[in-house]
Amino acid sequence: MTLLNLLASRSSRMKASEIRELLKLLDQPDIISFAGGIPDPSLFPAEAIGDAYQAVLGGAEAGAALQYQVSEGFLPLRKWLAGQMGRLGVQCDEANIFITSGSQQALDYLGKLFLSPGDTALVTWPTYLGALQAFNAYEPRYDQLTPAGGNMTPEAYRAAAAAPTAFSKGGGKVKFAYLVPDFANPTGNTLDAGQREAVLDLAGELDIAVIEDAAYRALRYDGEAVPPILALDCARSGGIDNARTLYCGSFSKILSPGMRVGWVCAPRHVVEKLVLMKQASDLHSPSINQMVMHRVAETIFDDQVEKLIGAYRRRRDALLGALEASMPKGISWSRPDGGMFVWLTLPDGADASDLLARSVKEARVAFVPGNAFYADGTGRNTLRMSFTLADDRAVGEGVPRLAKLLRG
Amino acid sequence: MTLLNLLASRSSRMKASEIRELLKLLDQPDIISFAGGIPDPSLFPAEAIGDAYQAVLGGAEAGAALQYQVSEGFLPLRKWLAGQMGRLGVQCDEANIFITSGSQQALDYLGKLFLSPGDTALVTWPTYLGALQAFNAYEPRYDQLTPAGGNMTPEAYRAAAAAPTAFSKGGGKVKFAYLVPDFANPTGNTLDAGQREAVLDLAGELDIAVIEDAAYRALRYDGEAVPPILALDCARSGGIDNARTLYCGSFSKILSPGMRVGWVCAPRHVVEKLVLMKQASDLHSPSINQMVMHRVAETIFDDQVEKLIGAYRRRRDALLGALEASMPKGISWSRPDGGMFVWLTLPDGADASDLLARSVKEARVAFVPGNAFYADGTGRNTLRMSFTLADDRAVGEGVPRLAKLLRG
Repeated sequence: MTLLNLLASRSSRMKASEIRELLKLLDQPDIISFAGGIPDPSLFPAEAIGDAYQAVLGGAEAGAALQYQVSEGFLPLRKWLAGQMGRLGVQCDEANIFITSGSQQALDYLGKLFLSPGDTALVTWPTYLGALQAFNAYEPRYDQLTPAGGNMTPEAYRAAAAAPTAFSKGGGKVKFAYLVPDFANPTGNTLDAGQREAVLDLAGELDIAVIEDAAYRALRYDGEAVPPILALDCARSGGIDNARTLYCGSFSKILSPGMRVGWVCAPRHVVEKLVLMKQASDLHSPSINQMVMHRVAETIFDDQVEKLIGAYRRRRDALLGALEASMPKGISWSRPDGGMFVWLTLPDGADASDLLARSVKEARVAFVPGNAFYADGTGRNTLRMSFTLADDRAVGEGVPRLAKLLRG
Repeated sequence: MTLLNLLASRSSRMKASEIRELLKLLDQPDIISFAGGIPDPSLFPAEAIGDAYQAVLGGAEAGAALQYQVSEGFLPLRKWLAGQMGRLGVQCDEANIFITSGSQQALDYLGKLFLSPGDTALVTWPTYLGALQAFNAYEPRYDQLTPAGGNMTPEAYRAAAAAPTAFSKGGGKVKFAYLVPDFANPTGNTLDAGQREAVLDLAGELDIAVIEDAAYRALRYDGEAVPPILALDCARSGGIDNARTLYCGSFSKILSPGMRVGWVCAPRHVVEKLVLMKQASDLHSPSINQMVMHRVAETIFDDQVEKLIGAYRRRRDALLGALEASMPKGISWSRPDGGMFVWLTLPDGADASDLLARSVKEARVAFVPGNAFYADGTGRNTLRMSFTLADDRAVGEGVPRLAKLLRG
């Protein structure tokens, strides 16, 4: 997701000419950016990945690596992932694992599978912008999920979904709840086990699917891991093939986003539908990347997670410390236990898009205005800062400069 | 596309149990198969591709190769492809090139872009099964394109598209014509320049897009290349940004299908829409594969085409010779100038699915029954044979065995 697209999205009030001007400024080398939601490329295990490509292409597997592949994905990778899901409390086998081209593709396929125009998707306010983009293609309505407390009753969600609007004749149904339970993009917040159980209760009463986007799950810097919603679901439903939760995993944040390898762990009947969808849409994810990802993951996954945790924890702590030291009163922010993002809330009435325009010009600091993450376009007084690329200079100089601007 | 899916597709009359039994037989090592529409993996340039992965991951590009990438694709690859399109008579630049995960993804996106439920896609009878699968997701109707002569009038196509059916209230429009003009899958047939111009005439009168699937274009074994439909379109419309033709290219048949790199060459306004679609559906095709494909293509593309032409021409000639020598009267077949397939027509009333079941059991020879390639499920007396994997033994023993079965 580029900042251009964020700013150009329907929820921004900026004019095209203002956006263009802003983007020119963003390209300048002295800008300190907390905007990009991307991993630090200097931490990619490039050598291990290079060795794996060499091993695959230099050996007996070369033909298979460059040839067509089955749509469900490379079997040894699916088996390895089934084992990993077992470590998270999800007993499953390869028939429950479907390989995608990143978890964005999983969101697209699940949107296509569940949504007809006018149906309702339950999402948090704010939520991952890429999920909204994936689902938007299928013309849903959105209603607000508040898993930290305050969800509406099932009857109220149903009635809202069925009501006519200016764009829909009504009669739509609630089809799924989508959420990022661990270190969410954009807020950094994590749901505890009780909140996850409450989501399953609601989903059960509505008889809808739960899409669990676990993109950041492995990146925990403090505290104990909370079981995946899918694990809690399996425990209550009697096993994965009875579960309503569809777990979307990704190697993008740990090993490499550029290789585009993610997975869905789901009941077999859902995997079978996704396989048919994939066959019609791009046949399969690249054979070679799946084979290389399998080799690399099998060898260094846990070590790589440790390495990232060490580096990103320091950057999170530095960013939180700098915010604490310099931000004026009236501004609050999340204190994430993991992931990549800190979420700031400005005083009521503030507009983070306007602030960005001034910040880039005057403070030479960039971030992402928060309203793009709201399905209803609200949240104008919020913004997202990513700490994955924030080195000492960025934090030490950028945060005080932004704070100074905010103090006016 | 696996034979399983072909056989299981809606147009087959075989029962699930028969298909399962057949597939078990197909796995046996003594089966000679002309079924798979795949390149010969022993001809993949594995060493050059391995060297390119090593160069990209061992150098300054490693970070970019493993990082997120813009949705339109890797710029140097897009520039190189614009140059290649220029060699084919299509003057364009990188703004006209969009990178896809294989040309199957291009077909999916173009289906999504153009088709609403009940709209009509014009396709040949038979046509590429993967195109039908991609388009089917958008619930179109199909009407028959006969570019070799005999197309209906624009008025007749329009009236048919708008008429109600058992599944549609009517009011649909013709949205595009899809065709494989060079060495088509499954027939092997090629359209001459006059036939291509006639497709453009029809598309102009209907004011619809033309989707030109050029997957096999580089694999010409005899005769002179015919200009792409897009080149003829540019000549008459005054340039690519005025053209109605969307050219879908692929590296799958020349360099590697397993890396999943294809492209669309199209007017800028179409590329811009495809970029937004890709951003929502899988963000981008793998960065590293695009960078590697660029290096390999720049270095060895023409040599690799020469190598494949030499090998596949010999196999085509051997297959055609064996058919000539052994097939009984009443059976005819195409004599393709390139590509991967020969198309056989059995006497009226014959059923190639039934023949396949007998052939695998008795003659130990496999092929693809032709009716799966027909949008209307006809074509039961046709079948497709691929020669890309057909070595001397396969041709020398398999064809006579199949011919013996056909003679009864």
